[in-house]
Amino acid sequence: MGDPAGVGPELCLRLAAHDLVGDLSNIAILGNARLLKRVSESCGLTIPDHVVSWDEWSHKDATTPDPPVTIVDCDDGLAEVMNVTPGRIDAACGRAAFCYIEKAIQAAMTRRVAAMVTAPIHKEALALAGVPFPGHTEILAEQTGTKNYCMMLTSDEITVSLVTTHVGLCDVAGQINSPRILDVIRLSDQAMRRIRSHRPRLLACGLNPHAGEHGLFGTGEEEKLIAPAIAAARSEGIDIRGPLPPDTAFLPAEREKTDAYICMYHDQGLIPLKMLAFDRGVNVTLGLPIIRTSVDHGTAFDIAWTGKAAPESLIQAVRLATLLANEPQEQGGD
Amino acid sequence: MGDPAGVGPELCLRLAAHDLVGDLSNIAILGNARLLKRVSESCGLTIPDHVVSWDEWSHKDATTPDPPVTIVDCDDGLAEVMNVTPGRIDAACGRAAFCYIEKAIQAAMTRRVAAMVTAPIHKEALALAGVPFPGHTEILAEQTGTKNYCMMLTSDEITVSLVTTHVGLCDVAGQINSPRILDVIRLSDQAMRRIRSHRPRLLACGLNPHAGEHGLFGTGEEEKLIAPAIAAARSEGIDIRGPLPPDTAFLPAEREKTDAYICMYHDQGLIPLKMLAFDRGVNVTLGLPIIRTSVDHGTAFDIAWTGKAAPESLIQAVRLATLLANEPQEQGGD
Repeated sequence: MGDPAGVGPELCLRLAAHDLVGDLSNIAILGNARLLKRVSESCGLTIPDHVVSWDEWSHKDATTPDPPVTIVDCDDGLAEVMNVTPGRIDAACGRAAFCYIEKAIQAAMTRRVAAMVTAPIHKEALALAGVPFPGHTEILAEQTGTKNYCMMLTSDEITVSLVTTHVGLCDVAGQINSPRILDVIRLSDQAMRRIRSHRPRLLACGLNPHAGEHGLFGTGEEEKLIAPAIAAARSEGIDIRGPLPPDTAFLPAEREKTDAYICMYHDQGLIPLKMLAFDRGVNVTLGLPIIRTSVDHGTAFDIAWTGKAAPESLIQAVRLATLLANEPQEQGGD
Repeated sequence: MGDPAGVGPELCLRLAAHDLVGDLSNIAILGNARLLKRVSESCGLTIPDHVVSWDEWSHKDATTPDPPVTIVDCDDGLAEVMNVTPGRIDAACGRAAFCYIEKAIQAAMTRRVAAMVTAPIHKEALALAGVPFPGHTEILAEQTGTKNYCMMLTSDEITVSLVTTHVGLCDVAGQINSPRILDVIRLSDQAMRRIRSHRPRLLACGLNPHAGEHGLFGTGEEEKLIAPAIAAARSEGIDIRGPLPPDTAFLPAEREKTDAYICMYHDQGLIPLKMLAFDRGVNVTLGLPIIRTSVDHGTAFDIAWTGKAAPESLIQAVRLATLLANEPQEQGGD
């Protein structure tokens, strides 16, 4: 359900009413049933009538089928959460959102669900709640014991994988190294084989303006760090080119030849992704032992609980999770 | 004429044949007449027939009108330049391109011309020639004695000004400070008043992912450096908002409300600019005592001298230079 004060609750209600539910997948909404009721009234939306507690749902006999939509009521500090104000950063919301994430990970790790899909959380609310992670991805890595993972954002228009994610710009260059870049290339290649059903064409961006222009800008990261990772990936049979100057890498002629971009930092990938596919992108965490997708937008506090939230990204995230869950699992690389 | 081995010579020939020449402006092509002849044959283009030497042209009596197009033959190391191979990085080309730039600056400073427009040069060729500047902008600043300048790229779709330009990504954070940001805001405001003929609406991007999310990423550059510059600009009557998260700043809804973006680094501005207006953007150096515009693309060595170069950016650069030259000069700020 994401942060209770954001658009997550409304998005869950809109998803529950969508055609793909029951048809493509059955959905369990991990959240707060009374808060969802309040949001449904505020937004003029219907609310699914099947509500069970987390304990009941998580221990359910696997032989009884699940209904198309279940609200799984979590022990999230009910009184606190019921008092939250929409659109406000609140430690109670950070705690509640973290509770839903932990339970969803548990459900996915125990195969109670085939995949988890996350609604937006607020990083400051998490921080106020004392949760020592900047975002979902880092929580998932920690709680599933995954060292080698990366964030990918995908859409029909463009797909980007990030070598560094939630770090300050001043820390990016120091966190780039060849083994990390090669890991991100491999993970992206594996994921795109499953998503596109063919050998994907990857493109790695440079780090510096003009890809460093042969060492004129930066400290030769393109030659010393990025090019060797590309060479190693090619020797494994991966179709990848680069490093290309970041400002021309995203021109239409390059995009036509590229299934996924390997980007060195957050905004190098997310500026083009959001320009081309805002509200339609899906965030996937690659390298986890579970399938996890997410919306690509934030809590949109300015329109929380108003009935104006666009569910397209969440619906795409559920579609992609379903696709990945129906593919043969290829853990440990292919 | 730019780098002789790039698309600059062909672009100059295409410009010379364009409707706007003679109508809007008279053009002097500072370059190498014999090389232009060779390129005209290679590309199947006509060549203007009025050729004069630099010495003759620069000392011409101001009372005789200039013809619509003049080729100004520069003393650029003729034998060397005649032997260059199209599409190859060559010290001779770097020396020649630098010679044209120096002469154009001299012509603009002495008001022999109302504005200068530059074709693409190659930074590595410049470096091989021992020219200690990473690009046009830095040469212009040095040779006109300008301390306070910035690079702006403008198009009908989007305009971006850069706080840092040709520096490695690892050096960006260290080169950002409030006085510099305020200078770029003021220069951009002045320029856009002239280009758009109204008080422009500016938007400053953050430096870090999510604009630092209140200090979670980075070292608080948004609060400590960017926000104070914005506040100071507002107190001077400039219409500016921000710092906004870079990845959502360029969404269509934001672009509609923004005449120019203040970007903290090269690719933050140039990724969206090139995605929206590739081959149609114009590069303007703000803060100089002369008017200078430029194409926004490189030497395109892969198609040099083949007849395939698209002159749209050069034509837009000439249009903008003409517009700025016909406006009342507002040196020292308005």
